[in-house]
Amino acid sequence: MQTRIAILGYGNIGKAVEQAVLAADDMQLAGIYHHNDNLDAIDADVVALCTPTRQVPDFAEKLLSRGIATVDSFDIHGQIFDLRKRLALVAKEHRAVSVIAAGWDPGSDSVVRALLLALAPKGITYTNFGPGRSMGHTVAAKAIPGVKNALSMTIPLGTGIHRRMVYVELEEGADFATVEKLLLQDDYFAHDETHVVPVPSIDVLNNVAHGVNLVRSGVSGDTHNQRFEFNMEINNPALTGQVLVSCARAAMRMRQEQRYGAFTMIEIPPIYLLSGNEEQLIRTLV
Amino acid sequence: MQTRIAILGYGNIGKAVEQAVLAADDMQLAGIYHHNDNLDAIDADVVALCTPTRQVPDFAEKLLSRGIATVDSFDIHGQIFDLRKRLALVAKEHRAVSVIAAGWDPGSDSVVRALLLALAPKGITYTNFGPGRSMGHTVAAKAIPGVKNALSMTIPLGTGIHRRMVYVELEEGADFATVEKLLLQDDYFAHDETHVVPVPSIDVLNNVAHGVNLVRSGVSGDTHNQRFEFNMEINNPALTGQVLVSCARAAMRMRQEQRYGAFTMIEIPPIYLLSGNEEQLIRTLV
Repeated sequence: MQTRIAILGYGNIGKAVEQAVLAADDMQLAGIYHHNDNLDAIDADVVALCTPTRQVPDFAEKLLSRGIATVDSFDIHGQIFDLRKRLALVAKEHRAVSVIAAGWDPGSDSVVRALLLALAPKGITYTNFGPGRSMGHTVAAKAIPGVKNALSMTIPLGTGIHRRMVYVELEEGADFATVEKLLLQDDYFAHDETHVVPVPSIDVLNNVAHGVNLVRSGVSGDTHNQRFEFNMEINNPALTGQVLVSCARAAMRMRQEQRYGAFTMIEIPPIYLLSGNEEQLIRTLV
Repeated sequence: MQTRIAILGYGNIGKAVEQAVLAADDMQLAGIYHHNDNLDAIDADVVALCTPTRQVPDFAEKLLSRGIATVDSFDIHGQIFDLRKRLALVAKEHRAVSVIAAGWDPGSDSVVRALLLALAPKGITYTNFGPGRSMGHTVAAKAIPGVKNALSMTIPLGTGIHRRMVYVELEEGADFATVEKLLLQDDYFAHDETHVVPVPSIDVLNNVAHGVNLVRSGVSGDTHNQRFEFNMEINNPALTGQVLVSCARAAMRMRQEQRYGAFTMIEIPPIYLLSGNEEQLIRTLV
């Protein structure tokens, strides 16, 4: 039984979802739609929302109200719980399933953080990002007057502290010292160690590599100094696209069990993310 | 609402479960039982089975048939699926829940392996164990004639290959060369690089530290070279005990949802393992 999955939004993530769908033996591409298209034209079991994050809530709500499952990688951490609440209502009413915040952070990192909390309930988890491009900081840097193009790299310094390396390509006649001063005052950069580096071209720096180093030292029972670490070095959109497809599969499984609603990845049995025979998966993985 | 948890078997793991129960705000100790005790005397919501692995199936079956949930860290990988089948029948019949193979491997490592497969469906995962004591190999070494006491350490060499460092305390008058030869011929040791080291006392080497280095390089969509790594360095029984208690909590949650049966950890939503308010957990972890 193939799952018919449509893609809404065809940027980096939409293209990565397409590749992950083509690589999956249980998925069939049910169309690629631009975010300005008429949503009523979409005919699919599940839609991967690959639009800018802020458009996700409205699109998801519309599709869920038609009984179509959705997956998204909504990434504004502070608003995820409210999105879950809003989409759960629509999803339950229309017997649909939505898997939200399904990327790598939020997403698979969230699953690792939950697991480590179960393994050592007391202690501190540090999530160290990078080296990799920060979308939010890059956009903020581009908005500085005099900046033609920019790239903000996140460099992990450990214990959740990050350095920002901001590469700027200046507009003709712009003064670097002025740009640097404005940028360092910007709220996005004022709180971290930030270095501004002028470069002749941003284009040649382009690289979608990213990484995470997630560490926890904690207490199991009354035993301290239990140490855990999760690392990854990945192509960012490729991983996000893959997570969306794996979560689309999980959404189908939840619907099959009539567990309607909106779910983050920590609310989903990991085996639901996987293609293949249940017995074989358990025999191989457990 | 407190969960009343009993402990069956009071060795290293049973004691660790006790500590994890005492540290949990939602758990109440409902008794500690020896594995020779009459099981009918146990009055609890859930029982942590801390007996030798081979006794787990019968004990679990008896308790489940009384509608009492069970958790175990049954660790014979090749028999887990069959145990799940056997216990699922009894659990469903008596509206009970059993969480099986709930330790760190099988257990939390299984969850990591499942997650990494979802993130990069093609590729190879290597689970490298140690340095740490292997129970099975230690027992095999102790069975060699002339060995008074033994300790077999597992040393990871990468790509799932392990070295065995076997420390032996000889019986009076035993010949080391003979013991070494017999040990190296034993099926437990014949297939790995094995070093036998005579020591005056095993007791002074005793240490329950263990570790894992789990690595995967795989393909997300059509993007190769996605690299993931999970490491831990832990007190072995303390972690196993903690996992059992976290899974006892998950068993209660599954029962509350009337999802009766037997489940491995990859079939359980990670959030079910955790104590605390759902909204706060999602806001903190996702």
